[in-house]
Amino acid sequence: HTDSTNMRLRLPLLCIILEVILIILFGTLVEYNDDTHAMLWNENRTDSATRNDHENEFYYRYPSFQDVHVMIFVGFGFLMTFLQRYGFSSVGFNFLIAAFSLQWATLMQGFFHGLHHGKIHVGVTSMINADFCTGSVLISFGAVLGKTSPVQLLVMAIFEVTLFAVNEFILLSILGINDAGGSMTIHTFGAYFGLMVTRVLYRPNLDKSKHRNSSVYHSDLFAMIGTIYLWMFWPSFNSAITNYGDPQHRTAMNTYYSLAACTLATFAFSALVNPEGKLDMVHIQNAALAGGVAVGTAGEMMLTAFGAMIVGFLAGTISVLGYKYLTPVLESKLKIQDTCGIHNLHGMPGVLGAVVGAVTAALASPDVYGHGLQRVFADVETGKWNPQSRGGFQAISLAVTLGMALFGGLITGFILKLPIYGAPPDTHCFEDGLYWEVPGEEEGHQELYEVATSNEVEKLSS
Amino acid sequence: HTDSTNMRLRLPLLCIILEVILIILFGTLVEYNDDTHAMLWNENRTDSATRNDHENEFYYRYPSFQDVHVMIFVGFGFLMTFLQRYGFSSVGFNFLIAAFSLQWATLMQGFFHGLHHGKIHVGVTSMINADFCTGSVLISFGAVLGKTSPVQLLVMAIFEVTLFAVNEFILLSILGINDAGGSMTIHTFGAYFGLMVTRVLYRPNLDKSKHRNSSVYHSDLFAMIGTIYLWMFWPSFNSAITNYGDPQHRTAMNTYYSLAACTLATFAFSALVNPEGKLDMVHIQNAALAGGVAVGTAGEMMLTAFGAMIVGFLAGTISVLGYKYLTPVLESKLKIQDTCGIHNLHGMPGVLGAVVGAVTAALASPDVYGHGLQRVFADVETGKWNPQSRGGFQAISLAVTLGMALFGGLITGFILKLPIYGAPPDTHCFEDGLYWEVPGEEEGHQELYEVATSNEVEKLSS
Amino acid sequence: HTDSTNMRLRLPLLCIILEVILIILFGTLVEYNDDTHAMLWNENRTDSATRNDHENEFYYRYPSFQDVHVMIFVGFGFLMTFLQRYGFSSVGFNFLIAAFSLQWATLMQGFFHGLHHGKIHVGVTSMINADFCTGSVLISFGAVLGKTSPVQLLVMAIFEVTLFAVNEFILLSILGINDAGGSMTIHTFGAYFGLMVTRVLYRPNLDKSKHRNSSVYHSDLFAMIGTIYLWMFWPSFNSAITNYGDPQHRTAMNTYYSLAACTLATFAFSALVNPEGKLDMVHIQNAALAGGVAVGTAGEMMLTAFGAMIVGFLAGTISVLGYKYLTPVLESKLKIQDTCGIHNLHGMPGVLGAVVGAVTAALASPDVYGHGLQRVFADVETGKWNPQSRGGFQAISLAVTLGMALFGGLITGFILKLPIYGAPPDTHCFEDGLYWEVPGEEEGHQELYEVATSNEVEKLSS
Repeated sequence: HTDSTNMRLRLPLLCIILEVILIILFGTLVEYNDDTHAMLWNENRTDSATRNDHENEFYYRYPSFQDVHVMIFVGFGFLMTFLQRYGFSSVGFNFLIAAFSLQWATLMQGFFHGLHHGKIHVGVTSMINADFCTGSVLISFGAVLGKTSPVQLLVMAIFEVTLFAVNEFILLSILGINDAGGSMTIHTFGAYFGLMVTRVLYRPNLDKSKHRNSSVYHSDLFAMIGTIYLWMFWPSFNSAITNYGDPQHRTAMNTYYSLAACTLATFAFSALVNPEGKLDMVHIQNAALAGGVAVGTAGEMMLTAFGAMIVGFLAGTISVLGYKYLTPVLESKLKIQDTCGIHNLHGMPGVLGAVVGAVTAALASPDVYGHGLQRVFADVETGKWNPQSRGGFQAISLAVTLGMALFGGLITGFILKLPIYGAPPDTHCFEDGLYWEVPGEEEGHQELYEVATSNEVEKLSS
Repeated sequence: HTDSTNMRLRLPLLCIILEVILIILFGTLVEYNDDTHAMLWNENRTDSATRNDHENEFYYRYPSFQDVHVMIFVGFGFLMTFLQRYGFSSVGFNFLIAAFSLQWATLMQGFFHGLHHGKIHVGVTSMINADFCTGSVLISFGAVLGKTSPVQLLVMAIFEVTLFAVNEFILLSILGINDAGGSMTIHTFGAYFGLMVTRVLYRPNLDKSKHRNSSVYHSDLFAMIGTIYLWMFWPSFNSAITNYGDPQHRTAMNTYYSLAACTLATFAFSALVNPEGKLDMVHIQNAALAGGVAVGTAGEMMLTAFGAMIVGFLAGTISVLGYKYLTPVLESKLKIQDTCGIHNLHGMPGVLGAVVGAVTAALASPDVYGHGLQRVFADVETGKWNPQSRGGFQAISLAVTLGMALFGGLITGFILKLPIYGAPPDTHCFEDGLYWEVPGEEEGHQELYEVATSNEVEKLSS
Repeated sequence: HTDSTNMRLRLPLLCIILEVILIILFGTLVEYNDDTHAMLWNENRTDSATRNDHENEFYYRYPSFQDVHVMIFVGFGFLMTFLQRYGFSSVGFNFLIAAFSLQWATLMQGFFHGLHHGKIHVGVTSMINADFCTGSVLISFGAVLGKTSPVQLLVMAIFEVTLFAVNEFILLSILGINDAGGSMTIHTFGAYFGLMVTRVLYRPNLDKSKHRNSSVYHSDLFAMIGTIYLWMFWPSFNSAITNYGDPQHRTAMNTYYSLAACTLATFAFSALVNPEGKLDMVHIQNAALAGGVAVGTAGEMMLTAFGAMIVGFLAGTISVLGYKYLTPVLESKLKIQDTCGIHNLHGMPGVLGAVVGAVTAALASPDVYGHGLQRVFADVETGKWNPQSRGGFQAISLAVTLGMALFGGLITGFILKLPIYGAPPDTHCFEDGLYWEVPGEEEGHQELYEVATSNEVEKLSS
């Protein structure tokens, strides 16, 4: 299989071509926005040089951006290191496809979110949005983890980012709905896109790599680094692009409470579904995060800590039950091999989040929000606002997202099936050695290994 | 022992009951505060939609909150992974009891810190305070690490959070003292509470698990992740709830210098107390942090970098000496089995911090603080301020805290001694396998292990 | 060798003497600045107690400071844990010399940056600058990693910090150039200083420790923690001390794009230079960061995302090629044993960054920058500004930096060669056991080891 999976030409060629195209497009299309441009930001200044600098969007958004950035690169990257021999690929390919996706997303989102005299304007908000779109690709990566070459992953990212931007445009700009934390745009989309891709790429003989499709003690600890960072910074994720002031503050807090309640549900059900009452690292690593997903839409609304905790508790519960009872069925009946169980962490909780968002939007009223209503729901100012239709549009958005994700994943899956990307053979899935120079064992272990095997050899030869 | 430690019913039942109670209480009692409520925050707005948004407390406190959050979940969680076979429990139980405690603390602190028309108001400051209270529980966790079931830990958290809130109320609201970084309220309280609990839970036969009560190479590296994050973000911890402006800025800086000096002391004394001059990871992982604890009270005052460095240097010194000379005595003479040595990291440095705080408060004067005096010492505005009595109240607070902690730990310890919580037997302390599904060894090691043991079996049978 | 490398007296003595000197100097020379001093900050307040608090530099700079702090302690510390038996030393000595350097740098930089009535004023900006200077020492540490005692490292830090401050003074204060992210002052200086030190300390018999001068599977994952944190927070590093508003915002964004492009170049060339097309962890861990180094000077200018991506792509490319083709030559021909390959990560990309900075500065004009020109280039206000001479001064600064670094490294190298510091013998380089209490193996492995070796012993004796 060495030739068929050799990346020596495929990967460099694709990376260099993609980056050259990106650079050309950035050179042609991308400009500093008003807050990053030296001339524009200082245009209306008087002699007082530092006046208003604190109003630069940088100071409102950059700390949130860095938290999101940590989630994308450390959170997602390390969460997937749970496999015993796939740590390099988990962190490394996560790194590669995220670095590509955020550039490509800047262009695609800039194009759909509205050009300024034919140009894309960039600043910290576009950086956050690009990271968000990247998150969606990384969710899909979780479904195909261990079964794809880096070239396949980059190709997947090209298509997924594009469709993400289209879906986001339909939801936010055409339907005008709310989804600040991306229950639909990021999680539902990324999950069902990835599930469809892995369905199309179904491997009947994946059992040949079964012995590597599990964790070891230290790999589970590395994965917990990813989990904990995702958990801690999810309040920043959901609030990163909400309006300044109370919406940002409220979203962060609702997410905090949702996650706390979700964690207790996760531990409860993880012990409950195990015959010996033992906790399962898979649940703790994943289901405890479902609370963040599930308040991604409603978190900026007046959900209250009470509401957030109920949603979080439900999300953790369905996520654990999904890992225990649904994932095996998806694999055996529907031929969906979902390595990380993204259906349980992003799929179902994303749908739950969309429903909760629709209900919470339908219940909104000026009695509760006061003058803050227009700061959460954009169409209040245009006078077109109506809570029931708002709720309805939120629900329609879920259907659109599911449709786009499944259709997009289907097409992309078939493209990825072409035998030109150096995909791993069934016998070498979940194995770093295929695409990475893997170092030998530690000195002590090596000696030990030699002793033990030489014993064996001697016995065999005697 | 499998039945007696089975968590299948105990843990789910307790988690679900607790979370349901929390949700009901949050639904009844908790409301958005002025900075998180859509109507209240936008009440007095004029047409200019973004006016004053930068004055929302979110922008002053949220970056500090996130740093504190990292300390609670990554810092404490990974610091305790040093044990060779207790990494899942260290990070996992830390995660569980922190997620519970922060919810329970929001209610308890909200109740004692003052209700608003019968309601608890929440926002980023209450989130920080809840994380602080959680920190205290996690400190106590360090004393009983490896010797308690998750059910015991949750029960401990219920009582400790409650008593923490009472003690904090006495100190901050009745005595009106300063303790922004919690030398007394968090560290002294958490340490002596935990030490008393572990005293009551004394296990004469803990030696049976002695071979697991130590680190291995990689577990020490995981623990260093915890240490370094605690060390880096301690300036945010101590400054998180001080007044805006100079107090927050000054506190962060004093803590930064205290920790730097403490680190040099730690390395110096770690080498000095070792016959071969070798550094001990236990000291580096723990004592280097004592400088943060010891400026938890005085850090917001005009301690100066000079003062902070002296305090940090002393804290590092007594902490290393404590690990070397005091911990063994506490165990052999006082029957206090302190797994993480919290007496050296939080106990003695906390007391030192209280004393330094009392002295620094007694030395305060308008000559040094100017108009800033009332921004550090709350009772200046009421005209009741007097530096000597301030210092006195600070000292009294230490005594109150020690009393509350020891008494509370005693009661809680006896409650935890009831044989209903599934505590580990003496032979299975410091062992993840009791409460967790632990994965097998890596493929290579597994084979190796089989080869080696089959060799042995063959020899035995020949 | 045990006696000759015993740290029992050397290390404590040096640490304590240094810290006592630091404390005395801080007591004599250091004062709170206007933003940290209780009296000065509140001097001109009216009755409204919180007026203007958001203008305290703390809120503009502290989030960036914390990101830089993470880079220094987690980023550099864990990046160097890639060696199989040097993790304790990598993180631990990084911790020690950083804690010392930041204190010493505060004094040296305070002295050269300008005293206030004979006093050094400190606040968050001085903390960032001290961390920056520390970064330079840690870069040099990378060159001598595994071959030096902690005493040698502290002595190196004493000299390097001092020379750093002199060089920085010449560049920023005398030549008046721009170097916000330190392509020259931090990276070029640190790299060539360290390379010269390791040249002077050349060990012809280092091959004796060759078997430990490599990674193992888990050590490479620990190193990736360092890499990813450096990568994520580099935008904060480069923007931490630029002017408020657009320069800070723009610098962060340019760095973000440079790093993304650099990452694709790194993966491309890492696969390309490997006969089997396999990716090399050494490249991913290091070269992917070169994009941050290379926009350290020009990042705050109107480089554009387009320009940043070109620079990042070039930096990644030369860095990978350097690891593959230049490092072996440097060792064999020039006798430069560069453990971490700092020449490829900091040396060449730093020089590239200086050149890019000179060109970008020479191309600056009011047509592009508008009123923002004076906020990037300090001498615009004095009327002395001239783009060509600006570019020229930038280029001269590179030459000065290289000269200072090489000369300083030469002197320091000879000082470090004295046989009094307990340096490791050639046979015990890259080995934690020399300076640390290293724990035994895990229970399972230990038994296994005993079984395997007892088998061997029996065979040998039979």
